[in-house]
Order: sequence, then structure tokens, then C-alpha cells
Amino acid sequence: MSSLSTRIEHDLLGDRAVPAAAYYGIHTLRAIENFPITGIPVSSYPDLIEALAIVKQAAVKANQSLGLVSDEHAYAITLACEKIRQGQFHAHFVVDVIQGGAGTSTNMNANEVITNIALEHLGHARGSYEILHPNEQVNFSQSTNDVYPTALRIAAYKGIFRLIDAMEILKVAFNKKALEFKDVLKMGRTQLQDAVPMTLGQEFSTYAVMMGEDQERLREAARLMCEVNLGATAIGTGINTHPDYAGRVCQALLEISGIPVTTSPNLIEATQDVGSFVQLSGVLKRVAVKLSKICNDLRLLSSGPRAGFGEINLPAVQAGSSIMPGKVNPVIPEVVNQIAFEVIGNDVTISFAAEAGQLQLNAFEPIIAHSLFKSVAHLTKGCLVLAERCVDGITANHQRLRDIVENSIGIVTALNPYIGYSASTELAQEALLTGKSVYKLVLEKKLLTAAELTEILQPDRLTAPRQMLVADTP
Amino acid sequence: MSSLSTRIEHDLLGDRAVPAAAYYGIHTLRAIENFPITGIPVSSYPDLIEALAIVKQAAVKANQSLGLVSDEHAYAITLACEKIRQGQFHAHFVVDVIQGGAGTSTNMNANEVITNIALEHLGHARGSYEILHPNEQVNFSQSTNDVYPTALRIAAYKGIFRLIDAMEILKVAFNKKALEFKDVLKMGRTQLQDAVPMTLGQEFSTYAVMMGEDQERLREAARLMCEVNLGATAIGTGINTHPDYAGRVCQALLEISGIPVTTSPNLIEATQDVGSFVQLSGVLKRVAVKLSKICNDLRLLSSGPRAGFGEINLPAVQAGSSIMPGKVNPVIPEVVNQIAFEVIGNDVTISFAAEAGQLQLNAFEPIIAHSLFKSVAHLTKGCLVLAERCVDGITANHQRLRDIVENSIGIVTALNPYIGYSASTELAQEALLTGKSVYKLVLEKKLLTAAELTEILQPDRLTAPRQMLVADTP
Amino acid sequence: MSSLSTRIEHDLLGDRAVPAAAYYGIHTLRAIENFPITGIPVSSYPDLIEALAIVKQAAVKANQSLGLVSDEHAYAITLACEKIRQGQFHAHFVVDVIQGGAGTSTNMNANEVITNIALEHLGHARGSYEILHPNEQVNFSQSTNDVYPTALRIAAYKGIFRLIDAMEILKVAFNKKALEFKDVLKMGRTQLQDAVPMTLGQEFSTYAVMMGEDQERLREAARLMCEVNLGATAIGTGINTHPDYAGRVCQALLEISGIPVTTSPNLIEATQDVGSFVQLSGVLKRVAVKLSKICNDLRLLSSGPRAGFGEINLPAVQAGSSIMPGKVNPVIPEVVNQIAFEVIGNDVTISFAAEAGQLQLNAFEPIIAHSLFKSVAHLTKGCLVLAERCVDGITANHQRLRDIVENSIGIVTALNPYIGYSASTELAQEALLTGKSVYKLVLEKKLLTAAELTEILQPDRLTAPRQMLVADTP
Amino acid sequence: MSSLSTRIEHDLLGDRAVPAAAYYGIHTLRAIENFPITGIPVSSYPDLIEALAIVKQAAVKANQSLGLVSDEHAYAITLACEKIRQGQFHAHFVVDVIQGGAGTSTNMNANEVITNIALEHLGHARGSYEILHPNEQVNFSQSTNDVYPTALRIAAYKGIFRLIDAMEILKVAFNKKALEFKDVLKMGRTQLQDAVPMTLGQEFSTYAVMMGEDQERLREAARLMCEVNLGATAIGTGINTHPDYAGRVCQALLEISGIPVTTSPNLIEATQDVGSFVQLSGVLKRVAVKLSKICNDLRLLSSGPRAGFGEINLPAVQAGSSIMPGKVNPVIPEVVNQIAFEVIGNDVTISFAAEAGQLQLNAFEPIIAHSLFKSVAHLTKGCLVLAERCVDGITANHQRLRDIVENSIGIVTALNPYIGYSASTELAQEALLTGKSVYKLVLEKKLLTAAELTEILQPDRLTAPRQMLVADTP
Repeated sequence: MSSLSTRIEHDLLGDRAVPAAAYYGIHTLRAIENFPITGIPVSSYPDLIEALAIVKQAAVKANQSLGLVSDEHAYAITLACEKIRQGQFHAHFVVDVIQGGAGTSTNMNANEVITNIALEHLGHARGSYEILHPNEQVNFSQSTNDVYPTALRIAAYKGIFRLIDAMEILKVAFNKKALEFKDVLKMGRTQLQDAVPMTLGQEFSTYAVMMGEDQERLREAARLMCEVNLGATAIGTGINTHPDYAGRVCQALLEISGIPVTTSPNLIEATQDVGSFVQLSGVLKRVAVKLSKICNDLRLLSSGPRAGFGEINLPAVQAGSSIMPGKVNPVIPEVVNQIAFEVIGNDVTISFAAEAGQLQLNAFEPIIAHSLFKSVAHLTKGCLVLAERCVDGITANHQRLRDIVENSIGIVTALNPYIGYSASTELAQEALLTGKSVYKLVLEKKLLTAAELTEILQPDRLTAPRQMLVADTP
Repeated sequence: MSSLSTRIEHDLLGDRAVPAAAYYGIHTLRAIENFPITGIPVSSYPDLIEALAIVKQAAVKANQSLGLVSDEHAYAITLACEKIRQGQFHAHFVVDVIQGGAGTSTNMNANEVITNIALEHLGHARGSYEILHPNEQVNFSQSTNDVYPTALRIAAYKGIFRLIDAMEILKVAFNKKALEFKDVLKMGRTQLQDAVPMTLGQEFSTYAVMMGEDQERLREAARLMCEVNLGATAIGTGINTHPDYAGRVCQALLEISGIPVTTSPNLIEATQDVGSFVQLSGVLKRVAVKLSKICNDLRLLSSGPRAGFGEINLPAVQAGSSIMPGKVNPVIPEVVNQIAFEVIGNDVTISFAAEAGQLQLNAFEPIIAHSLFKSVAHLTKGCLVLAERCVDGITANHQRLRDIVENSIGIVTALNPYIGYSASTELAQEALLTGKSVYKLVLEKKLLTAAELTEILQPDRLTAPRQMLVADTP
Repeated sequence: MSSLSTRIEHDLLGDRAVPAAAYYGIHTLRAIENFPITGIPVSSYPDLIEALAIVKQAAVKANQSLGLVSDEHAYAITLACEKIRQGQFHAHFVVDVIQGGAGTSTNMNANEVITNIALEHLGHARGSYEILHPNEQVNFSQSTNDVYPTALRIAAYKGIFRLIDAMEILKVAFNKKALEFKDVLKMGRTQLQDAVPMTLGQEFSTYAVMMGEDQERLREAARLMCEVNLGATAIGTGINTHPDYAGRVCQALLEISGIPVTTSPNLIEATQDVGSFVQLSGVLKRVAVKLSKICNDLRLLSSGPRAGFGEINLPAVQAGSSIMPGKVNPVIPEVVNQIAFEVIGNDVTISFAAEAGQLQLNAFEPIIAHSLFKSVAHLTKGCLVLAERCVDGITANHQRLRDIVENSIGIVTALNPYIGYSASTELAQEALLTGKSVYKLVLEKKLLTAAELTEILQPDRLTAPRQMLVADTP
Repeated sequence: MSSLSTRIEHDLLGDRAVPAAAYYGIHTLRAIENFPITGIPVSSYPDLIEALAIVKQAAVKANQSLGLVSDEHAYAITLACEKIRQGQFHAHFVVDVIQGGAGTSTNMNANEVITNIALEHLGHARGSYEILHPNEQVNFSQSTNDVYPTALRIAAYKGIFRLIDAMEILKVAFNKKALEFKDVLKMGRTQLQDAVPMTLGQEFSTYAVMMGEDQERLREAARLMCEVNLGATAIGTGINTHPDYAGRVCQALLEISGIPVTTSPNLIEATQDVGSFVQLSGVLKRVAVKLSKICNDLRLLSSGPRAGFGEINLPAVQAGSSIMPGKVNPVIPEVVNQIAFEVIGNDVTISFAAEAGQLQLNAFEPIIAHSLFKSVAHLTKGCLVLAERCVDGITANHQRLRDIVENSIGIVTALNPYIGYSASTELAQEALLTGKSVYKLVLEKKLLTAAELTEILQPDRLTAPRQMLVADTP
């Protein structure tokens, strides 16, 4: 590379030529070389890039207010952060998503890009760090160890609410189906065996309720994201910060981000502990488990068309087979199942990384971040495709559903309070063996009158509690 | 077995001889034969046995108040539940902790034991189910599918608070050490490399804070346990229940258990969803991850005696080696680490079981229960032994700790705001290469006066934020 | 406790009163107090107790042959080991299955029990360690760090082959059904959607094949168990062993155990590495995953009786419901599913414990052992109950299976080579919309003659490759 | 989009405009829309794209030899596959790595790209499927369900050997250090406590041995990859294949790929079972666990520079801190730890996906593939950076290592055979309390002569077995 197209930068290991066009500098360059792992740059998480810029902007605001950074520098740094937040420089955040060093490379990538944008504004060449230094003014009162986890929290917070919004769309879709199918009677099942009647609307309503509950748990997890450790610097003792800095930077962060951040009461604990990410991941795993359960159900209920349950039809979104003509598969639930499996695996990765944190810092936050951001983003996508490409278009096979209820043995359960569990058991066994209906058998055996039976066994009335006719008379 | 020592019972599969002395009956007998898996009976969770009795007692109270069970039967059933709660019949809860059937075997074990205790009180022989029937009066208005998960919740609730109490003891132990060591200066470490000074008291205080935060998360999880699905019966439609039953049984449950239970708003959802157990397990995993991290730290800080960190001493509780005389090992933290690993594995088991639930019921609640109860019980024991057999007796190696700080290179960080990051870096490198102290090098190079340096580098002042002397002057 | 019922023993922490009747001594006593975690004693793994006795017996044989232990002592120690192997002293192995200290407590429990049995034989009171010492003659040339992992390997080896035997019984059961159902035509399914025909016998044969493959993988894992580190002592350097000891003890171990053990080529590596346990656990997880998949299939195929797939019937082994009379549930597959979930969780626990090993030893072998032994034992039980209480009694619903094939759309796939994928797709869609059979539609449209069609669509011929009638003629 | 820049294609869902320049067609287009999950196209696994082309090429060769595809078509298809294998068309493999449909979208993406390349060669416009059809000639005798898993196996096989090669480089690096440090005496540690002496060379040799053992396990797993199910088509019955097809296509695959593939003996089993991927993932997890353990050790041994173990120095590859000047962190081991955590999480994802396979097919192979390919690729990168950027440059702190040995208490273990465990224990305790050396204390107490002691305690002789001076003489 000719000297025309590079500039020389220096660090504790010596000199290196950095591409002249690069806004990043020597630390980023070394990080690129040290971590050629996934090929996925940290810019693949735009929320994180934006959050880094927000944190740096808050820091310089606090420093300026304390007289620790000059107005000129503060202005230039702020401008650089604003430009990054507008998305103009994401391509310069090039370090790998999996990296050693507890996030230092990501923080230094931000410091260097901000510095060089600011230098450009100030009329200086990139790399003129004697004017403005990535490790000094731009990183003033900061350490990777408070900047990076704070940026992760800001980014995660935004991601969580994007997921909550996607879940809302899915919840609404389930609720629409619950209403549409509210009078569609069907057999409920326990342990895959025919149980007692319910409505298809009731079935879909449960999925909506699950989404709603999980939204609540996510909101709780989001609140945990709001406690930040800015001002902790290296290990939480706040070394090299002004006594008023932590308060001011938190206030600035709140104003710039619009997120109700507060400063952790014990900054040493906050700097080493990643418990809130473990908790968030636990909740994401919970969401995944439920989405997967729902998709398992949808695939089961739509199994067929002729050899399966055949209760509902999922909309066809693509040809299902390269060899079997006309085959339509439940590809949308299937992709959501797979997202769920990934999220559950990510949770184990996060447990490992969290447990491995030692003493005053968890060095493994980058893989925690990578895993969390994937989980949040993929679950969000999964909820949207599930709502829009599957649930919205589900139809019911009304006749089949009703036929099965009327032919079912499970309605014998409703006779329990009248003829007792033992007699009901014998009835059920006889119905199964003979193929006769429960209704007919009861009359044959004169266990109840036709009028009583009609009253008791009316399928539509079996889907809710009701007044008993008789009581404890063994 | 002679007929003298057995009685004959009957179910849908035919007749079987049950040991005459057994309070359980034919369903339990078949379950014993079907599930010879672990050899551990369900009575190994006394909380669950007690909770089953509480639920059954609440059910009969509600049924009696609705006129659905006679006063005589209600009295006998209540008496039986009370006796079980007093611990007199635990040995008759014999089904295996790992069992198929969604808890039906455990519920039937309870129904049978209660019935036979009640029959005894009523003056009838065991097995006189024509007088009182396990599936009728004792199970009236109930199904395994609402009784069993409700009992799990009651039992888990109690277990959670027992864990919170154990964590309190551990938290207090950490706080005592935090106070005892509040003036003991030491080097903080990030990524296992010397960083900047802190106090040993600060280090221990973080562990106390971690316990406190996790207690809070556990209390949130306990609240989720309070939403029960009694009244749901088979699939949540409340089939075979009186419209007022759900309300009355919840009120009765609250009174008998003293736990602020409420009825789930959507009983169909509540019957199939195990999300609250997944959430609880996620929190237990979080507790495990932190305990393990703390134990890793304790083992590291006490490594030595001569070739390790040697900062603290754990009390000796047993000889450490069969071959190395005098060796003392950190066996208490080690056992807690292992409990943590078990809990994290249990969380994966629970994720699998939760995800596998199909349609209107999760058939795999028994393994969820088994895993949760183990996690709660072992973490409780782990916190207690850690507090009492380890933390309480920890001592510090004061001189060694201080020597290392004074000889450290990390204090160069404090010079950053005065001489800049680049100059500080060079100083650090020279100190490392030459073995000289940072203090001496600064003076040699006349970077600061002795007075300034003493002021800046005074180790005790490095453990908190403080007013800077200078500002942004590149 | 009066002095009459105790004896005083001494260790580096001081004196303690040990129950006079106990064969264990002071180290075990302290371990009981230090690890009150699960309440499950190490004797719940009889294979491990036996293996410890085998290892100790091999050690004393080697020591005796080298002149390092006297003949009298050797005889007494050997006798004690033999008695333990006969199962007479298991109740004295009382330390908890979850324990700190890398197995030292279990090794010392063995050393003490052996010593006191031997002392009894020699005519001395328990605790007369001046005659024979648990840490000297009984532990001579040994360390927990070679004895304990070797005993784990011996015990695991036996457990693996017990599991392989149970899998053989299950494999035979599947093969019997494969033969019984070899002519029962049914629809195959992919992604739960009707695909193309196969036989029920083919379906069951796959389960037998899966078992066979996993048996092979288990045998490979068993071979890894045969490489032991006896002679390594504390860290693998063999300190305090005679140069010939490692060879002799391995030979003795082979003779006594009948297992083809060899000495690891690098004892330092072998002492710290638990990779073979990780590998074994990975294979057990694979077995679990397949068993769970098979049980999922069995539950699905037997779903119904009227609202499900209804293809096969599992034998009824207990009443399925406390509220729904006559309900029979797939409780045996369900319990196997749960065992599988437990095993998969155990694998994560083992991964954590293995990863946490530091430097020259893995301190967390006890939880690895506990998890492995549970996995092996429960899988063994699961295979047996699945074979004997489920698979053996499975029956097929012949008529229903055939009806579905004949009414299926999936057989359109067989037309692909004759009329092309696009035309076949249209046929399938029309069949689905109109409810007409594929056969009828082809004739109506004169796409093929009745003779050709009969030849092509004959269902029984669709279950294997066959000569095409036509080739590539787009 | 104007009609000039698109072409119209048709499938069972209707017409769609495909970009005119695209080699892919309507199925791929729909898949792009259905699965907007990760944004990562399947082409990010070049091995998989190449493997798909190899499989398709083998299929057409077999079909041609059986007269089932015309020579002209066969030639054009073969040419297309060759071009893809040369890497010219990877950009047209655009479906998402996480996708529903059991790989159908990936297979159809391949079918369409191959068809359109072949059509181009034949002088026809893209989309002229009446000439050559993606689902007919190109997919002849095939189904996604045999093509896709076979391609995964081919790709995994190549990946495994790339990983084995990277591990070889790492193993060599460890062995070089083992040789370099073969005479560097140090204290071995168990449970982080000082144990007995060893050499630093012995320590590094264990890491080399671990790599070697894992290479062996990977080779075994690679052999499992060689059993393919080509010829199975939809569910393993081989529907729509010529009886000789399976044999011929396997032979063709062997010739084209150079991999010793064989046809599974039971194709129905082979089509639904993903056990070999579970096994491979288990081995990858084992590799991950060991690499992580090694990196934990390297970080621990290099902790310091002044407050840690300080035994070895890792080469500095980047500045370690944005705030702490001169700090150098173990970033390379840290990144490898994180890769390991990811791989262990991937293993859980794969367990879930494998367990969820139902009946004749596992619909979740795409996430299995995604997880496996990530694990293999990242471990490969991790081994290379660890070797080249860390292990190669490790240096030892000789003096410090020897000082610690000479001052150690652990050498008391060597006195065990001479003065007994109890007396040795007292010596160790006194040495610890008084700070005196073991050597001095033995002489003071006249337990051994100076000559004996020198002989016994000579540190260099403590690192291997040796002839005892005395025997069993209590």
C-alpha cells in the first residue's frame, strides 16, 4: 500500500499504516487482525452503534459542563456522535461481533471514528491525535468497562420494545382468530388424547394471552436495562472521574436517549455483574419456548390434509416439496420453531459467558451481546412473519371439527357428576370397543332419560362451568 | 401375598391386590410398577405433599359450601388433609418423582391416601370406595390438570422464600466481611490483569449486592406462582364445576395456605402454559450463575498459599488431599459451583419439557417439578453452607495486599488526566521492563513534582471519584 | 453422645468423636457435615462403590508385588475390598453425591471403610490407624486424583453395557413389530403433512436401526473409559510411586475388573482432562434425543382415539385421568420423554463442570459423575419400560391405515415421472379442492389409461424403488 | 419493476415477476419473502453451495447412465454444476440460513440456479422451464429430503477436516512450547492450591495431547458423515427412483467429491434421523470445552503482571484498555473462550432441533446446519488465531517459577513415604504458620539427615515416578 493511501498511527505496540480513507484508527486495525472470527462486523447491530454514539455524546456533555473538555472539542465530538446516530458512518464500525477484550475494541472503534469525524470538522487530517485524542477527550471520564455495557443496555432496551411491538401484532392476529372462531366447537386434547370439548376460539385466545404475559415479562426486563454504570470507569471505583460526573452523565444520557436511565447504587457490582442480561435472556428463552409450543400446535392442528388432525388450514406461502406435487408445508411455523431453538441455545451461551466473568469485570460481554442481539432480532422477525404470513390467513374446517365432537367419547366426562366415575369409565370402554356413541349407550342402559341426557351432553354447554344437577351421593 | 395381607381394588384395567396396610390404592400401585425410574418417591418433596393436601382441603371446602359434598364427607376429607399436612402420611406418597401422565399418578396417590384416611375416620375399611371414592368426592370439581400445577405452585412458593432466607444469611455474611475489610486496600483486576486499586471491602460488598438483587427477582417470580388454575378441571373450560366453584376454591386456598393466590383470568391458557415455571427456572439459573461467579472469585483470591493470589484465606473445613499432607482446598465454594452447574442443566431440562407441551396440557410437568424442586433445595443448602462454613471465617492477608498495590503499575492510570494516555502508556511499559516503580520513574522524568505525585498517587484516594487537577489540554 | 458409643479420631483440624459403630472415620464425618446438599449418599451408585473397591484392591496388589505393602496388610486390605464388592458395606459410603473436593471425600470414605474392615480382620479396634492407616497403606501409591477418576471409568463402563443391554431389548421389541407390521400400508408424512405411502413395518424398523446405531456409539464411548490414569497420583507426575507401579496396577486392575484397561500415555493430561466423560455424555444425549423422537412419534401415531391420527394403539397400563373416565394416556412414552429431557440437561451440567476444570485437576468430577450415573441409569430404566410396558403391546388399526392411503393425495407423486411435476401439482390441487380421488381425476382428464394408472398407483408398489416406464421428455 | 427487467414464473400459488437478471426463480423468490430472518444468505457457507452442486452433478450422472435424462440435458446440467463449484454463482444462493421447509428452499434455489445456467448454455432464456425444468430433469430421482442432508454431510465433512488441520497447527504450537519449556520447573496446582512440582513443558504437552485426542474423535465423526441417503427421495422408500439409482448415484458422488460415501442400509431411517449431526455437535462441544479450559489456564498462568500468577507472558497483540495505559489483556484466549461458549450453545440448539423431528423427516435441518457450520468455522478460526497470535509467542518467567517451587510447602508430599502422612501434615502446617521452609524444619526436627533430604526433595526429581527408599512400616 503506497504512503499516499495510508497514514501512520502509533500505539504501545508500535507504528502501523492505516488506510487513509478509514475513519477508524490503529486500535481498530489491530482488532480486525486479531479477531477474524465470524466476518460479521459490529455494525450489523445498528442499535449498538447508535447507542455507542449516544453514550459518547452524553459523556462529552457531562465533561463539558464540568469544564473538563473544551467547548470547541465538545462541539466537534457532539457533532460526530450526531452524524453517527444518523447512520452515516456505520460502515466504519468494522470490528468482529465476536472479539476478545471485554468490548475494548468496539469502544476504541467508536473513539477513533468519532475522533476522526470531529477532526475533519475541526479542519484537521485524520489521525491528528495531537489535536484531539481517541483515548483522551473522546474517552474522557470513561472506560470500556462502563461505556460498553451501558451502550449494550441502551441497544437492548430499544430492541426489547421492538420485539414487544412485533408480539403485539402477533397477539392481535391471535385475538382476531379467537373472535372469528369463538363458536367453532372442537375436541380439546390432553396428552394428545381426546379430552373434552372446547371452542377453537378458546384455543386461539390462549396464544394471545401467552403473548400478553410475555410482553409484561419483557417490560420488566427492560426496566433492568435502565440501570447503568456510567461513571464507574475501569472497575467501578470511578477512578479519573469528577465526583459530579456520574450524576451529570446519567442526566445527559437520559435526555439524549429518552430512556429513563439511572445510575447503579453500587458501581463496582454493576461493572462486574451481567445478571440483567442473564435475566433478559431468560425471558427471551421463555418467549421462545412459548412461540415454539404455539407453532408445534399450529403444525399439529393443520396436519393432513387427509391423514392428520385436519382441524385448521395454514395459508400456502410456497410450494412445499421439490418432488411431491401440490404439497404445502407449514414453513412459517417451522422457521419460528428454529428461531426458538436458536434462542434457547443462545441462552446457554449467555449462561456460560456470565458464569465465566472473573473478579472486577466480565471479559465475555461481546458474546453475551452478540447472542442477545441475535435472539431479540430473530424473535422480532419471527413474530412478524408468523402473524402476517400465517396466523392472519388461518381458516377452520368447521364440519370436521363438529363431527369429531359429536362422535367423541370424551363427552362421557360430563356424566361423571350424575352416574359416577366408575360407571362412566365402563361406558367409555364400551363406546370405544363397539364404536357406538355415548349418547346411544346411555339410553340403552337407561342410565338417564333422553331429556336429561340432551341437557347434559349438549356440546356447546360443555365449554364452561355450569350448575350441577346433582351432588355427592355415592 | 396371602389374601390376609392384601385387599382387592378395581379400575378400568381390572382387579389388583393392594397391600392391606397401604393407604394408597390401585392407581398408585400401577404407577409404582409403570415408573421404576429413579427410586426416589415424590415424598422427597415434603412441600409438594403438603401442598397437595392444602389444595384438596380447599377443594372440599368449596364443594361443601356449594352443597356438592356432604358435611360428613367433607369433615372426613378435611381431617385427612390436616393429618397429611402434619407429616404423618408422607411415607404413603410413593410414586416416582419422574413419571408419565402429567401428574395424574401423584394426584391419584393423594386422592387414594386421603380417601383411605377419611374412610378410617368414618369407621370403614380401606378400599371401601362405595362409601367414599377417590375419583368422586375427594376429586370433586377437580382434575389432575388443575390440582397438580396448583400444588406445584404452592410448593414452589414456599421453596422460593426458604431460598430467599438462605440468601439473606449469605448476604449478611458478605456484608459483615465488607465492613471488616473496608479499609483493606488491594489491586482490582480486569481480565485477570492488574487494573487499579480498590478495597477488599468493596469487593465483598458486590457479592452482597448481587444476592440482594437476586432476592428481588425471586420475589417477582414468587408472585407469578400465586396465579393458579383451580377450577379449570381437564382443559380449562371448567367442565363439571359449579360456576361459583373457581371463586370459592381460590378463597379457600388463600385462607388455608396463607399465600395470596388468585385465579388466572384465562383458565385454558393457565392449564397448558408452564411459562411461570420457565421464568422461575430462569431466575434460579441467574442465582446459580452469580453464586458460581462468586465462588470462582473466592477460589481465585484464596489460591496459594504461596504460588497463587494469596489475598484471602478460606477457613479449613477438612483435609484436602489423601496424598498431599497439609493441603487445604476450597471445598465449600467447589460444592456450590457444582450446585450451580446442576441448576443450569436443570434449566435446560425445563426448557425442553416446557417446549414439548402440546395443545391443552403440558404432559411433562413432573420433570419440570422435579428439576425446579432440586434447584431450589440445593441452592438453599448451598447458600447456607457457603455462609456458615466459608464466608464467615474468611480472613485477609493484609500485608501482601498492600505490598502489591504499592508495587503496582496499574496506578499509572491515575496519571492519565495529568500527563495524557500516550505518556502514561510509555511510563507503564518502562516500569514493566525495568521493574522500577511508577512513582520513581515520574520523578526521574520530572513529569510531575513529588508533591503533585504524592497527592495523585496516594493509593487510598484512588478508590473513589475525586476532583481533577487539570482539564482537556492536549 | 456418650464416649461409650464413639471413638476419637484425629486429622489436621483436630479431634472428633466418630460413632463407634461406623466403619468410616473422621474425614468422612467432616464431609457429611460439609456437604449436606442432596441427602443422597454416594452408595446410591453401587457400581461406583464396587469400582472403588476394585481400584483399591488393584493398588494393594501392585504395592505388595513391589514390596511396598506387607503381605499381612495386603491380605487384610484385599479381604476388605472383596467384602465391599460383595455389597456388605455399601451403607457405610455416606458422603453426599454432590461434594466439593474433587472426590477426596469419596476416596477417603473408601480408605476409611477399607481400613476399618481390615483392622477388624486383623483383630484391632476401629480407628487403630497406628496399625493400618487410611492415608498410608490403603492409599499407598495413590491419590484421589487417580483413584477417583479411574473408579468413575470402571463404574461408567459397567453402566454403559447395562444400557446397551436394555437397548437391545428395546431394539428386539421394535424389530418384532417391524416384522408384524411389514405388510401394513400407511401414509408416510413429512413436516406432519401427508407425503407418500410406506409400511408400518418400515416405520418401526427405523426405530430398531436407531437403537442399533446408538449401541455402536456407546461401545465406542466405553472404549474411551478403558484408558485410566492410575499411577498418576496427585497431578500426573507419579510422585510417590515406584517406576513399575503404573504398569503393575493397570495389570492388576485388568485382572480384577475384567475390563480391558490401559494406562494413559500422558498421565498429566489424563489427570486433568475429563474429555472422555464429555464424549460419553454427548453420546447419552444422542440416545436421549432419539428415544424422545421415537416417543414423540408413538404418542402422535396413537393420538385419538377419534380426533387424532389413530394409526396404532399403545397398551393401557393405567387409568389416564382423575376426571375423564375411560381415558388412556401414553404414560410410558411420556416418562421416557422426561428421562430424555433430564439427560439433555445433565449434558449441559457436564459441559459446565468440564469447562471449569483448572490447571492440573478438574475439581468438579463429582457433579460429572452424579450427572452421568443418573443419565445412564435412567436411560436404562426407560428403555426397559418402553420395551416391556409399551412397544411389546402395540397394535395397529389396519383398516384405518389402508383407507387413508387409498384416499390420499400424496400418491400423485408417483405420477411425476409420467405427467410431470406441473401437471401433477394441478391434479393435487384439484383433488384437494373437490374431494375427488386422484385416480378418478386422472381418468376424467384422460392423462393416462386405467391400466397404466392401476399399474403406477398400486399402493403396495409405492414403497420401494422400481423401474420407470418413461424418461426425460419435457 | 418494468416488464423489461423481470420475467414471469409460475408455481402452485400463481404467477410472480422474477428479476430478469436472477438465475434463481419463483420458489427462491417466495422463500426470500417468507424467511427474512437473519439477513445472512445460505451462500455464507460456500462449502454447502459446492456440496449442493456436487450432489446435483452426481444425480444427473446417475440418471443419464440409466437413460432417464437425455445426454443434452445431462451435459448442460453438469456444466452448470461445475460452474457453481468454481464459485461463479454463489451470489445467487440467496435464501436465508434460517428457513422453514426442511431445506426445500435451499434445494429449489439450487435447482433453479442450475436450470437457468444450463438453459443459458442451451441457448434459451432464463425461465424457459418447458425446455428444462427445475423440478424435473434437474431434480430427477431426487427430493429435498435426500439431496439436502447429503449436501450437508459433504459440506460438514470438508469443514471437519479444515478444523482438524487448524487443530494440527495449534497442536504443533503447543508441542513446540512443551519442548522449549521442558526443563522449566514449576508448582503444579490442584483446586487452585499449590500441589507438587512439575515442568512447564509437561503443562504445555497436555494441551497438545488434548488436541490430538480431539482430532481422533473428529475423524470418527467425519466417518459418520460419509453415510448418505441419496436415493431415498421423499421419505426413504425411494419412490420415483430406478432400482439401480441409489447405487449409481452413490458411486458418482464418490467419484465427484472424492469422499468415501456409502449408501445407508436403511434409507427410511437415514432420511428421518439426524443422529450423526448430534454426534458431530457433541464432539465439537468437546473440542470447545477443552479449548476453553486451555484458554482459562493460559489466562490464569499469565495473570499479573504483579498481582497474579505471573508464570508466563502472552504476546501483546493490542492495547488492552481505553483508560488504563500500558495494560495488555489476554484478548486472544478470551475470543477463543467466547467461541467455545457459542459452540456449546449451538449444541443445545441442535439437540432441540434433532429432538423435534417428527415421523419420516426432520423439518429442522436448516438450523442444525446453520449451527454446525458456525461451530466448525469459528472453532477453526479460533484454533488458528490461538496458535499464531498467542501460543507461538508465549514466554516463561523462569526465575519466578523456580523461586516458588523452592519456597513451596507442597514438596512435603514427597516425604510421605518416609515419615508418614500424619507427620508430614504437621510439618506442612508448621511451615505455613511460621513461614519456614520445609527443608529447614525437617532438619531442625531431625526427621531425616541432610543427605537423605537433599536426595528426596531435589525438585527436579519430583516430576516423575522413582524408586522408593522405604516401604510399609507404620
